[in-house]
Formats: sequence, C-alpha cells, structure tokens
Amino acid sequence: MNERLNTLRHLMSRLNVAAAIIPGTDPHQSEEPCDHWKLREWITGFTGSYGTAVITQNDARLWTDSRYFLQAELQLADSGFSLMREDIDPDIRQWLAENLEEDDVLAIDGRLFSVRETNRLEQFCGENGLMLATDFPVAERIWADRPERPLTPTFVHNEELAGETVDSKLSRTRAAMEGMGADSLFIASLDDIAWLFNIRGNDVEYTPVTIAFAYVDMRQAVLFIDKEKVTDEVAAHLKRYDVAWKPYDDVEHFLTRRSEHNVTIIDPDRVSDALANAMPCAKIYAPSPTTALKAVKNPVQLAGFLSAMERDGAALVRLFKWIEEKVAAGEQVTEISIANRAIEERSKSELYHSESFGMIAGYREHGAIVHYHATPECDATLQPSGLLLIDCGAQYLDGTTDITRTITLGIPTPDEIHNYTLVLKGHLALARAQFPVGTCGVQLDAIARMPLWQEGKAFFHGTGHGVGHFLGCHEGPQSIRTNLNPTALEPGMITSDEPGLYLAGQYGIRIENLILCVEGEKTEEFGNFLRFETLTLFPYDLRLIDRSMLTAEETEQINAYHATVRERLTPFLAADEAEWLAQKTLAIQ
Amino acid sequence: MNERLNTLRHLMSRLNVAAAIIPGTDPHQSEEPCDHWKLREWITGFTGSYGTAVITQNDARLWTDSRYFLQAELQLADSGFSLMREDIDPDIRQWLAENLEEDDVLAIDGRLFSVRETNRLEQFCGENGLMLATDFPVAERIWADRPERPLTPTFVHNEELAGETVDSKLSRTRAAMEGMGADSLFIASLDDIAWLFNIRGNDVEYTPVTIAFAYVDMRQAVLFIDKEKVTDEVAAHLKRYDVAWKPYDDVEHFLTRRSEHNVTIIDPDRVSDALANAMPCAKIYAPSPTTALKAVKNPVQLAGFLSAMERDGAALVRLFKWIEEKVAAGEQVTEISIANRAIEERSKSELYHSESFGMIAGYREHGAIVHYHATPECDATLQPSGLLLIDCGAQYLDGTTDITRTITLGIPTPDEIHNYTLVLKGHLALARAQFPVGTCGVQLDAIARMPLWQEGKAFFHGTGHGVGHFLGCHEGPQSIRTNLNPTALEPGMITSDEPGLYLAGQYGIRIENLILCVEGEKTEEFGNFLRFETLTLFPYDLRLIDRSMLTAEETEQINAYHATVRERLTPFLAADEAEWLAQKTLAIQ
Repeated sequence: MNERLNTLRHLMSRLNVAAAIIPGTDPHQSEEPCDHWKLREWITGFTGSYGTAVITQNDARLWTDSRYFLQAELQLADSGFSLMREDIDPDIRQWLAENLEEDDVLAIDGRLFSVRETNRLEQFCGENGLMLATDFPVAERIWADRPERPLTPTFVHNEELAGETVDSKLSRTRAAMEGMGADSLFIASLDDIAWLFNIRGNDVEYTPVTIAFAYVDMRQAVLFIDKEKVTDEVAAHLKRYDVAWKPYDDVEHFLTRRSEHNVTIIDPDRVSDALANAMPCAKIYAPSPTTALKAVKNPVQLAGFLSAMERDGAALVRLFKWIEEKVAAGEQVTEISIANRAIEERSKSELYHSESFGMIAGYREHGAIVHYHATPECDATLQPSGLLLIDCGAQYLDGTTDITRTITLGIPTPDEIHNYTLVLKGHLALARAQFPVGTCGVQLDAIARMPLWQEGKAFFHGTGHGVGHFLGCHEGPQSIRTNLNPTALEPGMITSDEPGLYLAGQYGIRIENLILCVEGEKTEEFGNFLRFETLTLFPYDLRLIDRSMLTAEETEQINAYHATVRERLTPFLAADEAEWLAQKTLAIQ
Repeated sequence: MNERLNTLRHLMSRLNVAAAIIPGTDPHQSEEPCDHWKLREWITGFTGSYGTAVITQNDARLWTDSRYFLQAELQLADSGFSLMREDIDPDIRQWLAENLEEDDVLAIDGRLFSVRETNRLEQFCGENGLMLATDFPVAERIWADRPERPLTPTFVHNEELAGETVDSKLSRTRAAMEGMGADSLFIASLDDIAWLFNIRGNDVEYTPVTIAFAYVDMRQAVLFIDKEKVTDEVAAHLKRYDVAWKPYDDVEHFLTRRSEHNVTIIDPDRVSDALANAMPCAKIYAPSPTTALKAVKNPVQLAGFLSAMERDGAALVRLFKWIEEKVAAGEQVTEISIANRAIEERSKSELYHSESFGMIAGYREHGAIVHYHATPECDATLQPSGLLLIDCGAQYLDGTTDITRTITLGIPTPDEIHNYTLVLKGHLALARAQFPVGTCGVQLDAIARMPLWQEGKAFFHGTGHGVGHFLGCHEGPQSIRTNLNPTALEPGMITSDEPGLYLAGQYGIRIENLILCVEGEKTEEFGNFLRFETLTLFPYDLRLIDRSMLTAEETEQINAYHATVRERLTPFLAADEAEWLAQKTLAIQ
C-alpha cells in the first residue's frame, strides 16, 4: 500500500531497528519546518504542523493533537498509519513500552531531536530495557525525491527598523553569557539568529527567517549558512560587524573542534542532541540569552509596531467593509476569497512583507475548529447570517501583527450575543489588568477565562503568546497560559490576548489583540506594578455585545478603545471607510 | 559576649570547620520544632519560627524574612550575630561564597537538612571549591542544658472521627506506592505519620502530632517512637492494625539494614539527608503518597469540619460580642486578653483540643505586622476606634479551624472602608470561582489579588494554604499562591482564602475563610468543573463595606453567606447572642 513505509521497514530490518520515531520538526526545532525536512509528511501523507510518526515492522502510528484529529483521519486513510489522539490514546512512550521487547533497538535521527527530548527517550529506554540509537538518518537513506534546502536570498533588517546594531546585540549577549558563567553560545533557533545579526530571509513560510546556525564566543561570532543565500549586501553587513560566515553543513565539524575548556550555553529545547554531543566542551543547558533580550522590544521596534498596527487596522477596515457590503449585496464571498482580499489590502503598504500565518477565516461551524484553514473542498460561501471568525496577521518590516475578530453577518442569536460578551469580558479584564513586577503569565491566565468558567464554559488553547518584531508570530519566552512557565512579564514584551469559545458544529468566537507590557503604578509601600497597552487597532462587534452584562468600567474601556481606534485609523482611510469605522465605533452606554 | 557562640567556634576550630550552618528546624522538617531542636534559638537568642544561622571564626549571621526583621534586630543585639534580611541582603550561599576560601570546610548536621537542601549545598560547594561535611552534631557537642525530647502521651484518633481505618489507609498507600514503582516508603513528616496511623500527640504546640518516623513496605508497617509515649490504648490500636513499633532512636540502624533491592519512596523535602543516606536501597525522590491522600478529606472528616465550624463560629460570636461590649463600656480589653477569652469560649466545646496556632490579635498598627503576636511589652489596649485584626483557629477532635476577621471599633475612615472592600472583593471572587478540573492554585491566586493590584496595592503572603483534619493548620500539597506549585485542586481539599492589605504604622486588614473544593458543573463539551464551598461561619463587618463598590453578584454573595451563618450558628447561641448575630448579618442592598 504505502511504498515509502515499506522502504523504511526494509531499512529498519537491515539495521536491526525495532521501532523508529519520525518527528515533524527540523534541526532548528522550528514550529513549521520547510519541505526539506517534511519527512514525516512524506512518509505518512499527514500535512498538519504537529505530529510524530512511530513505525515498527508490523505497525505504524501517527500521534497528533485535537486540532488535527479530523484532518489526520482523512489523510492517513490507506497510508498504513493509524491515528493516535494525544491526551486520549496512550502516548508514544506508553505505546512503545507495550509494543517493544527487551533489548529492542529504538532509532531516531538525533539531528531532529532536542537535547531534552533525547534525554527523556534515553531515560525511557533505560527504564524499559530498550536500546536507543540516535544515528538513524532516514531521509538520506530512503527519500529519493527529497526537496533541497531552500536557498532564498537573505536580506538585512537595517538598524532604522531594528533599533539596535549587531554590535550592541552581540555585546549585550556576551555580557549575559558572562553573567551565566559561559564563554560561548551555540544557537540553532532561527528567530534568535535573525534577531542577533539583523538579518532576515524567506526560507520558511510566514516567518522571515533564514536557515542557519550561529556560534558566539568572546572573540568571534560565526554564522553557518548556505553561501548561495548570502547576498553582497548581507556579506558586507556581516563583515561590517565582524561576523564570520561558513557553510551551513560545516557546523558539526566546527563544533567538534571547540576546546574542552569552553563553557557553552545550549538551549536544551532548541539545540539537537547530535549537535550538542558534537561539542567536547562543558555545557550550560539554558535558554540562549538572546531569547530574553529579543522578547523585550526597544523604542524603535515599539514605534514600528504602533505604525504597523495603523496600516494593518486600515487594511482590515477595508477588508471587513468589503465583506459586509459584498454579503449585503448578495455577491459571492468565500473564506478563501477573504484571505486573498486581506493580502490585497495589506500589500498596499510599502512595508508589507507577507502574512504572518495562514489566515483562519471560519464561517459558522468552521469557526469552531480552532486551527481551521479553508481549502477549495470545504471553502464556505458567506450568507447574511451567522458568525464569521477571522484570525490573521501580517509581517511588516517594522512589526508583526496578529488579530482575531468575530463578527455577525446578520441578526445574532441571544446565545451568540451572550457568549461573545463572555469572551469579550475576559479579553477586556486581561487588557486592563495591573500586576506587580515579577508576575508570570500563568498567574494572569485565568483572568481572561473566569467569565466563561463561571458558566461552565472553557477554551482549550493559550490565552496569550509572545510575538516577534518582523519575526515569529509565536515567540518566547513569555506566555499567558495554564502552563507553569516561570518567565516574568517585563515592560517591552508583546503578548496576545485571545480568549475564545468554540461550539462544535455551531460557531466559534475568538477576540484577539496584541498587548504591550508597560510600567504601571510605582509605589513606595507595595512596589512597582506593570500593566498592558493595547497595540491592535480594530473595533469589536457592537452588535454582539450584551450591554446589560457589562460593568460601567467595561463599557468605558470599550468606548475608550473604540475612540482610540477611530482616531488612529481615520487618517489612513477614505471618507466612506472613515464613515464605516465611525459607525462601528459609536460609544455605547 | 556570647559564650555559646565561643564554645561553638572552639569546636569548629578543633574540627577544622570554617563555617557552620545552624538551621531552625528538626529531623522532621517541622515548621515549628519543639524545644529539643531549638539549637538556633539557643545560640542566637532569636525566637522566630523562621531563621538560619551561619557562623565562621570571625563572623556570625542570622538570616530571616521580613516578618521577623524587627524582632530579630532586638533579639540579636549583643548576641554576636548580625541580621541578614531575606530578599534584601545577599543570601546564605552568596555570603558563604564571598567569605570562605577554596578548600574550606562547610559543616552541617545532616540530620537537620532535607535531601534537597543538602544536594543544593553540595552543588554549591562543588562550584565554589568548598568541602561539605554533613556530620557536624553541634547540639550533642556543645548544648549542655539541652531540653529532652517531649514525651507526651500519644492517643488514638478513632475511626468515628477519622473516617477511615488504618488498614484502609495502609492499603491505599501501598497501592499508590505500587503505582509509583516502589515497594517501600519512609516517612519523616509528623502529620503524615499521624494521619496514616490514626494517632495524635501533644509533642508540638498547636499541632496534635507525636514525634516519630514511619516505614511501610508491602509486608510491614513500623512506627519509630519513644516508648514512654505509647499508652496501652495506642499499643493495642497499633497491634490491632499490625503496626510494629520500635524505639525512635533505632530508625537509622533499621534503615541501614534495608535490602539493596528495595525501591523506597523518600520525600526530598521532608526526609533528612542523613536518613536518606542510611538506606542502601534504590530511591524514588517524590512526596510520600500519604501527602496527597491526606489532603483529600473523606465524608466523615468533612462532616466533622462542618460541625467544628458551627461550634467555632458560635464561640467567635461570643468573643466578638464580648469585645464590642467591653470596649463600648470603657472596660479594659487588650490583645492578650482577647486571646485568652477565645480559648475560654472555644474550650466550652467538648471536642476542643487546643488553639491551632497562637492568635494574632493586632489592634491598629499592630494589625499591619503580618505575623504579630502580642507580648506583655507591646500588648495594646483597645479604644472605641480603629481597626482590629484577629486571626485565630482551633484544633477540635473533628476538625481544624483558621479564621481571620477585621472589625472596626468605632467609626471607620473612608480609607479603611475602601481598603476593606477591596480585600473583601478579592476574597469573595476566589470563594465563588468555578474552574476546570486540573486547575492549580497559582492559576486562581491573582483572582483574589486583582482588586488590590488594580489600585497599585498588594499583599505579600499566600492567598491560601491547605488545612489538615485535627492536624497541621498549614498542610500541603495544594496551595493558592504565586509559587508555581503544580498540584491541582481536588474535591475534598480544604484551603484558606485570605487576602489582606497592610499599611505599616496604620492598620492591617485580612479576611480569611476556609473553603472546600467541591465538584462544580459537569459538561459534555467543556469537561467538568470544580468550585468552592465556604466552611467558616462568621460575618464580615458590614460597617466596613462600601456598597457602591460591590456588584449585584457580590452583594448577593454576602447576603447569602450571612444568611447561612445566621441559620447555622443561631441554634448554638443564647437569645442575646442570636440577636447580636442577626444585627451583624442583616441583608444589604
């Protein structure tokens, strides 16, 4: 049935491998790897961004989470793989423990597994009498038509946009390294590398990074990158800042030659086991200091975000006005046409680069599928009724946007209004929260959930993720979610605020703004506080708000936000667009 | 100056010890050790429950936290020790790193340090080129007039009160051990031992435990206890459940003789390094399964709590009525006299055993000292004005109570009313929260803090601690505080709900009820929820509530609670007391 699977099993049999794990990631632990590393997709047929395959001689399984259950069922049909549902079925280790025998060899490609994952597997194998082989390069051995690594040209993200020179970033990074007792740092995460060297690329869809590794010590900084991607501009830029560059494939050899006396910082969640093991030096397993530095945006970056939000908001006014008018006129608008129209409107900005992720435009029951993406097969045509959820964002050279709005296309039901207002109350509560310096996201997460929880309702995704500056739409280290992430929120960090509610088969509601952590009150007695400022500029849907459910404070908060949206966006709008926005932002009582 | 310190230095010098750490705890990691283990107090003069001394040949320091800064300053005068303030001054390890030289010996008594603390010290010494000696028995060598271990008689906490037999507890504990892959369990924490064997004692003030160790494997259960404490009743009880008992001092020898093939659970935070090392077996470092079992109260325990709360509430009605009437009549009432009166009122209950901690009765500015305890030197006399904070609790054979109320003794200021209402809003919000199964306390903590935070105010203690059943007034594993404690709240767990606000030199406000985690809504789509039921029965002070700051929901919540308090307590009150309570619980609008 599945020739690729047969080929793999043949290889496994020859090498005495009882089970192989094929992950969905790349040597940089990217959320969404490029085609070159989509081995799991090639072998299973499952295209979702999250999933891991496990193969034995007489069984083959694919694990993914609830976002992808439906899609995986369809795509795995006739693949030889059966679906394992995360949090419902036994997890990979349980399954392996039950399906392998003592002394069996479990094989992985150690270049694709982080240090932490590999350690866990090693411990698991030890406890279960299995042998772990970490040098099983499946792609090289069986993937004949494997796509090449992308070779898109790299470009400079200049200091006028980045707000800081490479020199300054290197010197702050080295100071942080010293503070951690390290003399060197190896980085595999693409966004950290792009930030550190003020370079960008187009190797990965939606995230303007270039595929590379980086090594920094007190004397040198080295970028490992395919030479075809280094334009003259980038070569001059790197030279100016004394950054050496070497071929991407030389990284392992370079690392093996580091001194045993070095003390190198390695992020155990971002660096692969294979590369970590290549280094003979002492290691400090900790996040790269660039991750924390990158998360706190400088004034130039913040000014860029403010400006990008104005252009994005104006484009969204045109988009939503177009949707409403088309639907009212009885013309055909589909989920896919909305996504195309968004790109059309946004790309009128000179600083527009691309979308920051594939738009989620979910009409009616499609809105209840949290990571829905319209395809020609399921593309829904909008009617003048029901809820429409749009989650989208753009990469501008001066900032990254990510917004979700839910609107009604007709006369909303009382339930739709009630639930929208619950979600909005949580969203507003987080946006207006003040909290002491040192507070972590997990402490604030329930603030946005409580109005729903009180009624026995809930959503099952994070409330907020960090956002990069012309970089990843998802960026660490901070988050606002139920995970016990110990990272304290700091002024200059940008996070989303996106509670939601999803009624399967009916509709989905999500309301998302990006919020900036800023200084709040400073007190003698109780210390200093932080709060949020909302960056995103676009109105909520007044038709979906039950005013009787709002406190005076919440009503005031909505009105103040809408006044700001109107004031900031109007200069970018034509007269009819400004009038449309004025109607959408009328003060409520 | 300090002869004891000189004696210790002499010993250190003879044994080539450069620095010694003297902790404030005992071999059971008790919060409040008995006199026998108060070596740190003996040598420094500092009597606070939290503090660690470090001694070198030419320096001596005592570390404690902000609760005790003032007290420690006073008590350390002329002691040879200087105060180190936690979170302000360098911590112990920083200080040691700066004050010791390579190859210096740092000495501790490993019987008083938990496995985790000792591991941290070992790592610290390794990193700093120091040598750690863990066999430095200071008390035995220099403490001539050391008090004996207490030998108070142990007694049985019978099944009618405990709700579960020792057999059942042992079998559930063994099942949990098996689930963890262990065949044996060593317990040093006194409350776990008391719970497991349904025994109690009076060795420690306020917490009815007996000093002992316990060992459980699949064939035997052994209690290590001073034989003088084992009454005939307890001996018969232990025999009935096949629990062997051996002399307390035999524990180490017993542990050394365990088989190398055993796999023993050891709580790294509760078992000492010395005893953990005595065992030759494999170890699983995890909390004792009894800790989680003990936290979830059974129906008999819960019925006991409900009943104890009625008796406690009625006693408090008489106490607060007495205070108000005495003050109104111009008679002398002091903080200490309130504590005495509370014991008098509570001990009218046959099931009363003792207070569950020393009362905090803080009048005016004394209320702002979070862990204030009145002494004859500072005992304040109440006037018909200002705020009075009373935090107290009792041990009844059928349940443990812990309540804080803040009342006004005259006409409150607008500030007092405003701040009381803020604290109350947070207290009420937590009490009425509903949340999904799996939620941890840290996710709920900010719910109780947010009304204060929004105004740039804060309190610096936990919002909620677990409470034992006729056991520790502070009990794990759950908590509601800013710490990232991963323990999920479960139905049957009891926690306090006690936000506060402290204005140094002015007054303190704290409002505390015990709340029981119970099942909430069960839904098909969003899973099952939990919520709280309030156990404590005593009115808030209506004179301190700004009704304009309350939502309709909050007003209703107060009225419903006050109706319950009135209904449940009135049967226990004389007519004039009932009338007083009726006035205190009038519905507000």
